[in-house]
Amino acid sequence: MSNSLGLLFRITSFGESHGRCMGVVVDGCPAGLRVRVEDIQAELDRRRPNQGQITTGRAEEDRLEILSGIFRGFTTGAPICMMVWNRAADPSRYEAYRWRPRPGHADYPAHVKYGGFNDHRGGGRFSGRVTVGYVMAGALAKLILHQQLGLEVLAYTREIGGIRARRLTIEEIRRNREKSPVRCPDLEASRRMEAEIMRASAEGDSLGGVVECIAENLPIGLGEPVFDTLEGEISKALYSIPGVKAVEFGLGLEASRVRGSENNDEYRLSGGRITCTTNNAGGILGGMSNGMPVICRAAFKPTPSIRKPQRTVDLSMMEEATLMVKGLHDPCIVPRAVPVVEAMVAVVLVDHTMRSGLIPRVLEAGRNGL
Amino acid sequence: MSNSLGLLFRITSFGESHGRCMGVVVDGCPAGLRVRVEDIQAELDRRRPNQGQITTGRAEEDRLEILSGIFRGFTTGAPICMMVWNRAADPSRYEAYRWRPRPGHADYPAHVKYGGFNDHRGGGRFSGRVTVGYVMAGALAKLILHQQLGLEVLAYTREIGGIRARRLTIEEIRRNREKSPVRCPDLEASRRMEAEIMRASAEGDSLGGVVECIAENLPIGLGEPVFDTLEGEISKALYSIPGVKAVEFGLGLEASRVRGSENNDEYRLSGGRITCTTNNAGGILGGMSNGMPVICRAAFKPTPSIRKPQRTVDLSMMEEATLMVKGLHDPCIVPRAVPVVEAMVAVVLVDHTMRSGLIPRVLEAGRNGL
Amino acid sequence: MSNSLGLLFRITSFGESHGRCMGVVVDGCPAGLRVRVEDIQAELDRRRPNQGQITTGRAEEDRLEILSGIFRGFTTGAPICMMVWNRAADPSRYEAYRWRPRPGHADYPAHVKYGGFNDHRGGGRFSGRVTVGYVMAGALAKLILHQQLGLEVLAYTREIGGIRARRLTIEEIRRNREKSPVRCPDLEASRRMEAEIMRASAEGDSLGGVVECIAENLPIGLGEPVFDTLEGEISKALYSIPGVKAVEFGLGLEASRVRGSENNDEYRLSGGRITCTTNNAGGILGGMSNGMPVICRAAFKPTPSIRKPQRTVDLSMMEEATLMVKGLHDPCIVPRAVPVVEAMVAVVLVDHTMRSGLIPRVLEAGRNGL
Amino acid sequence: MSNSLGLLFRITSFGESHGRCMGVVVDGCPAGLRVRVEDIQAELDRRRPNQGQITTGRAEEDRLEILSGIFRGFTTGAPICMMVWNRAADPSRYEAYRWRPRPGHADYPAHVKYGGFNDHRGGGRFSGRVTVGYVMAGALAKLILHQQLGLEVLAYTREIGGIRARRLTIEEIRRNREKSPVRCPDLEASRRMEAEIMRASAEGDSLGGVVECIAENLPIGLGEPVFDTLEGEISKALYSIPGVKAVEFGLGLEASRVRGSENNDEYRLSGGRITCTTNNAGGILGGMSNGMPVICRAAFKPTPSIRKPQRTVDLSMMEEATLMVKGLHDPCIVPRAVPVVEAMVAVVLVDHTMRSGLIPRVLEAGRNGL
Repeated sequence: MSNSLGLLFRITSFGESHGRCMGVVVDGCPAGLRVRVEDIQAELDRRRPNQGQITTGRAEEDRLEILSGIFRGFTTGAPICMMVWNRAADPSRYEAYRWRPRPGHADYPAHVKYGGFNDHRGGGRFSGRVTVGYVMAGALAKLILHQQLGLEVLAYTREIGGIRARRLTIEEIRRNREKSPVRCPDLEASRRMEAEIMRASAEGDSLGGVVECIAENLPIGLGEPVFDTLEGEISKALYSIPGVKAVEFGLGLEASRVRGSENNDEYRLSGGRITCTTNNAGGILGGMSNGMPVICRAAFKPTPSIRKPQRTVDLSMMEEATLMVKGLHDPCIVPRAVPVVEAMVAVVLVDHTMRSGLIPRVLEAGRNGL
Repeated sequence: MSNSLGLLFRITSFGESHGRCMGVVVDGCPAGLRVRVEDIQAELDRRRPNQGQITTGRAEEDRLEILSGIFRGFTTGAPICMMVWNRAADPSRYEAYRWRPRPGHADYPAHVKYGGFNDHRGGGRFSGRVTVGYVMAGALAKLILHQQLGLEVLAYTREIGGIRARRLTIEEIRRNREKSPVRCPDLEASRRMEAEIMRASAEGDSLGGVVECIAENLPIGLGEPVFDTLEGEISKALYSIPGVKAVEFGLGLEASRVRGSENNDEYRLSGGRITCTTNNAGGILGGMSNGMPVICRAAFKPTPSIRKPQRTVDLSMMEEATLMVKGLHDPCIVPRAVPVVEAMVAVVLVDHTMRSGLIPRVLEAGRNGL
Repeated sequence: MSNSLGLLFRITSFGESHGRCMGVVVDGCPAGLRVRVEDIQAELDRRRPNQGQITTGRAEEDRLEILSGIFRGFTTGAPICMMVWNRAADPSRYEAYRWRPRPGHADYPAHVKYGGFNDHRGGGRFSGRVTVGYVMAGALAKLILHQQLGLEVLAYTREIGGIRARRLTIEEIRRNREKSPVRCPDLEASRRMEAEIMRASAEGDSLGGVVECIAENLPIGLGEPVFDTLEGEISKALYSIPGVKAVEFGLGLEASRVRGSENNDEYRLSGGRITCTTNNAGGILGGMSNGMPVICRAAFKPTPSIRKPQRTVDLSMMEEATLMVKGLHDPCIVPRAVPVVEAMVAVVLVDHTMRSGLIPRVLEAGRNGL
Repeated sequence: MSNSLGLLFRITSFGESHGRCMGVVVDGCPAGLRVRVEDIQAELDRRRPNQGQITTGRAEEDRLEILSGIFRGFTTGAPICMMVWNRAADPSRYEAYRWRPRPGHADYPAHVKYGGFNDHRGGGRFSGRVTVGYVMAGALAKLILHQQLGLEVLAYTREIGGIRARRLTIEEIRRNREKSPVRCPDLEASRRMEAEIMRASAEGDSLGGVVECIAENLPIGLGEPVFDTLEGEISKALYSIPGVKAVEFGLGLEASRVRGSENNDEYRLSGGRITCTTNNAGGILGGMSNGMPVICRAAFKPTPSIRKPQRTVDLSMMEEATLMVKGLHDPCIVPRAVPVVEAMVAVVLVDHTMRSGLIPRVLEAGRNGL
């Protein structure tokens, strides 16, 4: 296991789906950040299943508990432990899968890797519920980016079940995404996505999709080549979200199909600032931010839990078997993944802004009450 | 800068395109690995431009020098420093770009990040030539995987300029890829790719493409969730190769467009072993290898160096300008990227096999001459 | 802040003296370790102040809570979060020191480093109470060492206030140390130490001392030169215990005063095994364990909290001032530091045993219930 | 093996005593540092054996080669590889010790740990010659400290063979230490040390001693508690120097023998600045620099190579044996360790100054030639 991420802004995740709690320790957060519980709770609430028919029924309140590191409303420089108690855990119904790994889930390799000792209930450590911790850490990261750099990290649903949003402006994304139950700011596409999810759900099936994430106004030069490139670090962070199978930047896969003369982003002067005429690079060149908006996409596979019979193997008997996954599962995880993608991108951006020496170790110097 | 990668098998890269040398230090390599210079040189040779018209003309011999860590033909457990001298460096012609960043290159963000102190000659530290070090480290990694696990890491050109190879068996890939000047084992597609590269080159333009990499016979459970997932670690390693803009596993992006019932890989018994009927997951579930072949793809953008006028900004005058990139550049880097992709995947796999406790710290125990 | 320690067995500490709790996350613990709550509670109890007159009066129950990572009595391979709630916190009396740094405490540099945002109450993050987390992690580490290697880590009070225990056998140490209120197995010296502590305490003063720690039966070769030497790693871990000002191994400082012919430990054969005639090296050569018992000593300064007037500076007024530290403080921390020293040494030894590839990632293979 | 040290300023060591070279890669060095080859060569020269009769006769020129990372006299932000070729290597005479581990050397545990594959010649990777790389890295670190913080790291021989220098002022240390062949600024003690070394040498024996290191004018707050304390980090770095067996800070071991009222450093105002009346803490409280000079001491054991018969065990025959170590060895390594101690302390201080956010990633901004 390796449950820490980041060099200077470092998060450590803990908790299991049907254990006592989900939590995270954030180490390296600068002192002097004003933190209101509501700011973090709001992000947790965005992640909760509250989009009616299209999300799971497990009713977790996910009420934030701050155990350390915040004193009189400000970060202290000490590690910040945040957690939520698991209230609606119901591990009993997972006993059926103990010996019958669910296709598309981590059950089988986890069983082998941990010699059968892993907490299998609801996927245990491999459940999407692990992202509760990511979101709490990400909420802190977003506060830092916002307060220190005036920077917003903005994700939205770009595609579900093959239905893709039209090209959107940042303004449209910001305005419309929370109006859509699937977090797609193209409200027409949103309706079609919703219908498609309900159709798949009615058939006991599931859908995947693509989340796009945009960060504007980054300083130039974030990213530490040659190995800790901004693409590599964001990519690694996104792959820690269950279900991600592809990550791309800017034109991404399409860049490999056009010519250099089409793909290169030419430079021009605009109001005394150097900018690019296009942003096919997704804001990253040589592994470093180049001043254009950073644009990345994570592709999620369809939820592996489906209400259809599937072939598996009984590990205790070593014989083929069939299972039907029961329980409360999102037919499409993509809408709820939107705040999680934002969280992980924000965590990486704060870490790299600190690595670039652009965030002081004590914020709001002079406001420290002396 | 961050020029080290890996936790237990750790590589540290150094050198610039037109500096004295390119090198790498490999730390954590188990003692007792029999290393023949030819094995490493062979990988360097695969990376060299030797595919006639379709590759660059910079004639580097890339002759391996081992500076430390190998004694009487075996690794000692000490750090292994390997390097090649830069012989054909010709930095003079890069003076033109010192103040005029080349579109699509790292020039501009590097200039800002390093305050103009970076070695700009031929991209300096951001040149594709940095991969010489990757290939030397990867050659060691491949030796370990081969000798200890009987494991081969196999990459090939899957797509260039939009031309895609047909579906191929491992056997075809192994047999045909080095027969093709573009390393595409579908020899018919290879011919079309070659023609397309020459067409683009004739027009002063460039192409990108996709490299696929396959690793069979991995132990189950490689990868350290939740943050050091096998996808995340491979992905980060691949993004350290200049030009990569997308990385995907198994069905990848396409997985987001099919239904759960189509995407899930069902389990079955085959000769007493548990296997999957399909491999849409690309051999990775929950961030861990699941026993099926690991399959990943890296999409490369077209070479940014093109012989066409491009708009840029003169950084010294802060005025718009035009430039034409001269010099010896591959119109398509993809064929030469094939051994580099293999190298980086191999490095990650060795590190994770060690992290899983599956490679002893001294190899060939009992053969140590006592 | 940097609150994680270890490479493969990695602990992350959180909590403040008068915050809600003290805790630790242990990542990398092998799966399959049988953990009884009592084993960990017993170590916490050893650390608690329960030695009558010579220890502090803050009455914390320090009742263990396991939040994650243990399932049905075994570790799962997932991160293990353990904590105790702070019940007897009484931060009010620390308001006096908010602007008047206590001599010998971390107050002043912490105030500057964290811009006054640090939780100053009772030293906050710099309190000896942080070692509660160390002890919980150390208890797990000791279980692993005991179950996997039959290895015991044994510390005792060697010196207090200049009174030194006579030379003792391991057997005497094991038998007598918990009989002594100061954990000194030389019971005669123990009585004198106790009297000396009470004398200092009566005068409002405090004492320091030396803890020696012994680990027998280590595998040969633990430690990762040249930088992660066993001495360096143990030393760094010991310096994380508040009050440590010197660490030495074997003859330690005295080694610098004898001749090579006296200091070198010669080899001999004993029952077919290679052993040393002496152990001046403290079981470590070239940064690696050499098969002899590892012996280290940590010297603790006297408790800085004394009931005597001391000169300080008022940070808000920037004027000289006088303070008297009130509250419940141990006149000598050394007896309670004994289990903490054991904990930190155990944590390092587990990490390095894993780094040497000598502990499997799943323990008790075959006992996993399949 | 673990041959990298540091988080942001990170050094990676390579090379063996009788291999081709000794080297180091420094990663994370800020761009824009003016580096003159002479500055680094001067430190190498200080480390060379040139103190007449009292040092070894192996005549290595140790001529600096810079392989990467410096361009037109300035650091570029890229990794800096520096090395010296081993010219005077004479491995033949070490064949005698291949199977007969020398007492006090790393031979035996290295043999076991690396399964006999380690380069045993002259200790190979465990030779004091490894410190050539430390000194090159430390020279860079010293340049940064000097240019950026006006800070000097100053070590000297405090004790040899039990002869201790009297208490000295910084000014005396600075003025006299290089006048003394043993680097002891108390010139009277120096003469006695010299005589004692020659006496031991004449008897075929060796001596140890203590090096003290002082760093003045550090910013307050360096060090990252709770685990990366300044003491812990310096200590770990010092233990990477062959022969160190104890490290202490300020009063060190003596602090454990005085009372709190004697040991606490009281605060006072002096010219508007907060300072301490004493410096028993050695400039570090709570693991952080407190504004007073940082003072640490490393105790070196006597050189294990002595010209006296010693008992050992023949590893090939598994029988007891006797050996006499021949060759060119310093009867006392302490004088030559002085620049090495400075180097390692400087490396840690730069890393922590960067971690505290107090060194920009590009130095001399505005001087970059734009």
